Amino acid sequence: MREVYIIGVGMTKFGRLPEKTLAELGREAVWNAIRDAGINPKKIQAGYCGNVQGISLWGVFGSGQVVLWEVGIKEIPIMNIENACASGATAFREAWLGVAAGLYDMAVAFGVEKTFVRKGAMIDIGKGFFENRMGNNMPGEFALRAKRHMHEFGTTTEQLAKISVKNHHNGCLNPYSQFQKEFTVEEVINSSMVADPLTVLSSCPNSDGAAAAILTSRSVAKKHCKKPVRIAASVLRTGSHKNDRNLAVFDVELQAAKEAYDMSGYGPEDIDLCECHDPFTIAELMHYEGLGFCKIGEGGRLIDQGEVEIGGRIPFNPGGGLLSNGHPVGASGMRQIVEIVWQLRGEAGRRQVENPRIGLAQIMGGGIEMDVAAEAIHILARD
Amino acid sequence: MREVYIIGVGMTKFGRLPEKTLAELGREAVWNAIRDAGINPKKIQAGYCGNVQGISLWGVFGSGQVVLWEVGIKEIPIMNIENACASGATAFREAWLGVAAGLYDMAVAFGVEKTFVRKGAMIDIGKGFFENRMGNNMPGEFALRAKRHMHEFGTTTEQLAKISVKNHHNGCLNPYSQFQKEFTVEEVINSSMVADPLTVLSSCPNSDGAAAAILTSRSVAKKHCKKPVRIAASVLRTGSHKNDRNLAVFDVELQAAKEAYDMSGYGPEDIDLCECHDPFTIAELMHYEGLGFCKIGEGGRLIDQGEVEIGGRIPFNPGGGLLSNGHPVGASGMRQIVEIVWQLRGEAGRRQVENPRIGLAQIMGGGIEMDVAAEAIHILARD
Repeated sequence: MREVYIIGVGMTKFGRLPEKTLAELGREAVWNAIRDAGINPKKIQAGYCGNVQGISLWGVFGSGQVVLWEVGIKEIPIMNIENACASGATAFREAWLGVAAGLYDMAVAFGVEKTFVRKGAMIDIGKGFFENRMGNNMPGEFALRAKRHMHEFGTTTEQLAKISVKNHHNGCLNPYSQFQKEFTVEEVINSSMVADPLTVLSSCPNSDGAAAAILTSRSVAKKHCKKPVRIAASVLRTGSHKNDRNLAVFDVELQAAKEAYDMSGYGPEDIDLCECHDPFTIAELMHYEGLGFCKIGEGGRLIDQGEVEIGGRIPFNPGGGLLSNGHPVGASGMRQIVEIVWQLRGEAGRRQVENPRIGLAQIMGGGIEMDVAAEAIHILARD
Repeated sequence: MREVYIIGVGMTKFGRLPEKTLAELGREAVWNAIRDAGINPKKIQAGYCGNVQGISLWGVFGSGQVVLWEVGIKEIPIMNIENACASGATAFREAWLGVAAGLYDMAVAFGVEKTFVRKGAMIDIGKGFFENRMGNNMPGEFALRAKRHMHEFGTTTEQLAKISVKNHHNGCLNPYSQFQKEFTVEEVINSSMVADPLTVLSSCPNSDGAAAAILTSRSVAKKHCKKPVRIAASVLRTGSHKNDRNLAVFDVELQAAKEAYDMSGYGPEDIDLCECHDPFTIAELMHYEGLGFCKIGEGGRLIDQGEVEIGGRIPFNPGGGLLSNGHPVGASGMRQIVEIVWQLRGEAGRRQVENPRIGLAQIMGGGIEMDVAAEAIHILARD
């Protein structure tokens, strides 16, 4: 398979955007990526769209076609991918595969979602599952994980809260982020309880938004792009409860991270920044461990010692994460890719990590009942 | 890219199956395909699932993971694909791509859907579209096409009705088909009007069902399978209203068919049978023309002269089509693949076409507003 490069990225601001349709959000992100790449959109030979709730919330099937029709891209193969929170990352992976295989010379991958329907509404896409019907929704799942992690490793509510404080701080440096407000540890801990120990400010909001990337072969990238970013690894994996449902460890992530490091030839010591899946504070802390930046159980130390801040040893979510950007489900995985590309090109403004060469994007989708449905890891590198 | 072969297929009976969940339907089809291939399911390295309404009707996201979890297939990459009626065919295409690229040595593609919610309910997944809100649902769209075809080419209601008669006849020969009843031309014409000139018996029903195929490389297929079926072409294309919205011609299909014939090295004269998208009678007639089996406007002659019957020059929908099998949206494209594999292997029982060597599967998804969202054509060949 061929090496694949990203030559353009773009996104919308994330947030509550009732004035914009799903098609308009997607169009804005895709056009921004096309302009960033400086290409003629007619060069794009395939489109992959990550979307979860287009049909269920808005009566829109074929989100990818709807968006690209608005961009003026027609006739090519267009596919819509659903993999829960990992939908955008999975669309990106399939676009990578198409270009890597040589089936397409250029493809656009994007994620788009409108999840905000009304204040206080929770995403309700799991009612077909037994555990959901028994009351175990997403906040409940991550609260169980948090409680178990605290029990096994002594992780504290303060440590979890510091992750929210950090990500909201980073979000203030990111003009695309939904939240633009600093919070203190006390404010996070004392905000309304959602599922003990997770409060409102320990949780990501429902949001609208879209993000996109243009992928192409090495030869095209090297000819047309000053700062191409190489896709060094693309890994997708489903969980298996191999660890006997030990909720304090993402077993699937240990395997997926190993695969991604093997595929890229890099190790955790080579990674300069991470964008990870932080729908709740505990998730980010578990990813410090799952991705190999510390031993299992030591995540709390990383946030205490500032290692995951911008300027620290391994900045996590310099873009603000889901906690600050919000979580348009199908778009979040693509937003991470966009942020890493901006960081690797040195275009991340006030939240710029110092001279990064390699970045890692991690996102997962799915719930407890059948473990994690989709763990996606991408490693991107500046040559 | 490598040549890819199908070494096993399986499906459920299609119909109203309220006693079976989406997971159970998918499991049955995938297990049937695994048993047919005679492989250890642990050999499967990726899963692609076509599904449209899992979230909107049943609150089940990650249908592919849910199904494969029940089969006992975990840890591997699993992706869910939505492309309206072409979802199953698109899942199959992506699995083909993964094996062709060499990323996977063996993959399972399947489609699964439960659309039957109550008698008389129509599939309502397009309410986000302007033309749908103005009243133009799927029966309306195809009725417009029928009226235009009749106006331009003199096609008659009798000719359209004969397609329903033929497909219901073929369905009686297919134990997997929802309908097992013969109808006369008069009965089709005199059944309740849905959208003039299309009656209830000119339309496919909502149904539940699943279908699956195991794909692998040439070397594995030749070693482990007595009757491997080669994927000679996989084409996916989005429409563009290039023909100025001439509703009597599927312009996108003329392009897609040309691509598929070019890719396979075969022409219409080489094709021994077709499974095509016949949600309404007019659709099948237009596919006679769009796929190149007669000139534009001459479709009526093919049905009048019996050329599209089993035993005719080019049997269309020997399995009974959507008109007889029903239309579990995400599964129909995969059912076509299964039927063609059975036909090419000589295992189609009473509906067997005589010694076929090459079969073509065509399905399309999407509506008028942005033309056809996805036209998928696969050509399968017995070596």
